[in-house]
Amino acid sequence: MIKLALIQIKVHKDKNINLKRAEMGIKEAAKNGAEIICLPEMFNCPYDNNYFVKFAETYPNGDTIKMLAKAASENNVFIIGGSIPERYQDKLYNTCFIFNQKGEMSGRYRKIHLFDVDLKGMRFYESDTLSPGSDITIVDTGKIKLGIAICYDMRFPELMSLYAKKGVQMMVIPAAFNTITGPAHWEVLLRARAIDNQVFVAAISPARDETASYVAYGDSMVVGPWGNIITKAGIDEEIIYADIDLSIEEEIRKRIPLLKNRRM
Amino acid sequence: MIKLALIQIKVHKDKNINLKRAEMGIKEAAKNGAEIICLPEMFNCPYDNNYFVKFAETYPNGDTIKMLAKAASENNVFIIGGSIPERYQDKLYNTCFIFNQKGEMSGRYRKIHLFDVDLKGMRFYESDTLSPGSDITIVDTGKIKLGIAICYDMRFPELMSLYAKKGVQMMVIPAAFNTITGPAHWEVLLRARAIDNQVFVAAISPARDETASYVAYGDSMVVGPWGNIITKAGIDEEIIYADIDLSIEEEIRKRIPLLKNRRM
Repeated sequence: MIKLALIQIKVHKDKNINLKRAEMGIKEAAKNGAEIICLPEMFNCPYDNNYFVKFAETYPNGDTIKMLAKAASENNVFIIGGSIPERYQDKLYNTCFIFNQKGEMSGRYRKIHLFDVDLKGMRFYESDTLSPGSDITIVDTGKIKLGIAICYDMRFPELMSLYAKKGVQMMVIPAAFNTITGPAHWEVLLRARAIDNQVFVAAISPARDETASYVAYGDSMVVGPWGNIITKAGIDEEIIYADIDLSIEEEIRKRIPLLKNRRM
Repeated sequence: MIKLALIQIKVHKDKNINLKRAEMGIKEAAKNGAEIICLPEMFNCPYDNNYFVKFAETYPNGDTIKMLAKAASENNVFIIGGSIPERYQDKLYNTCFIFNQKGEMSGRYRKIHLFDVDLKGMRFYESDTLSPGSDITIVDTGKIKLGIAICYDMRFPELMSLYAKKGVQMMVIPAAFNTITGPAHWEVLLRARAIDNQVFVAAISPARDETASYVAYGDSMVVGPWGNIITKAGIDEEIIYADIDLSIEEEIRKRIPLLKNRRM
């Protein structure tokens, strides 16, 4: 059994508040026995292109990056650091930093599929400020192999299949769906990704803030490899926990051998 | 608008009864204005390897194949003939025959992913008798481009993506999920395929027969490209109808340009 925590926090316009809230959440989750702790997409920064530019950090000296490394080692936990705007050379990325229990960076995932959409009443083009990553990221905690994707990435099943083919056992997906796509697509896509790839799926959203320019959906959840919802948050700030039993995954893969039966 | 009908019929051990029931269903649906009429997977034959061998037919002289061709021209409708066991050279396939309004075969799809599973209390290996197909099948009715997949195929998102990339506007999926996989996966997978590929999805199951050796799930449905269920059958025999409005699909593809944003 592996104890997982998802920290659904609200994102404020003050970066320091965001870091404090995340740090407190990590501490609380660790105290409750969580071994792997996951944060939401852009947890340190309002989901807004102007803020991406202002709040961007460079590894290893950014405030958020240092906080995550320190929190991982101090609490002896594995942290999937949601995502933050990262500055690298002359570009910005939507990046997930991952730290092991010693506070060492054990992976860095840059969102591959940028969110460029024009919903009724809600236009958002990440590519106005961000560049896309191009590499998948798999980290092994010693107990479980995790694959990372960020939000819009989850709409592209080929990416998820690629992770499954490489032996990933749980997808961790920091994400910020909104109140248009959330009710329509959030749960069904997360469940389908779990079923298709026979993996656990953990998706972590910011809590909902109706006053924000982009209103995140909330509803963070952990889904089992049979497509069942193991645990689910509401729309407010909340830490949710799940016990991950990998023997279930093994059993399902035996019963319906999708990886063996696939022909493309 | 294109009027679609899904004929959810029970499958009997007597092939003639199956043909009569299908023929009656087609007639009724045509009378009600349906332009495209879809039948379930293995609608002429119990879902059982022994029956596949006994009931297999060869194009163009099999009884079922002739019935479909005749029904299409007599009723002036486009028929997606679910599937039947097809004998071709020395092999058997799970094949969907498609006939246009003139009664000409306009496509033939052989199930690519064979259902080889061992669920608790339910083992089924299609490959004990069947061979897999290897080609996708797209048919253009003049009003809409349809892609065909059969049942287990729907668990492989790459196949669906391939159809979407080739311009398919609706996936038609004759299928026979069972009472184990049905409640867990049927609706969520159909909705996800529609959302991922921004296509309509029509899935046609046999009606449920608790006395059969393999108990089909029922619940035939048509899903819109936003993932919404347009219409849905219960578990008993029933014809369901849907009006397909392709302008909705176009609109959704503009708002969330998945085909443009994809990077793999």
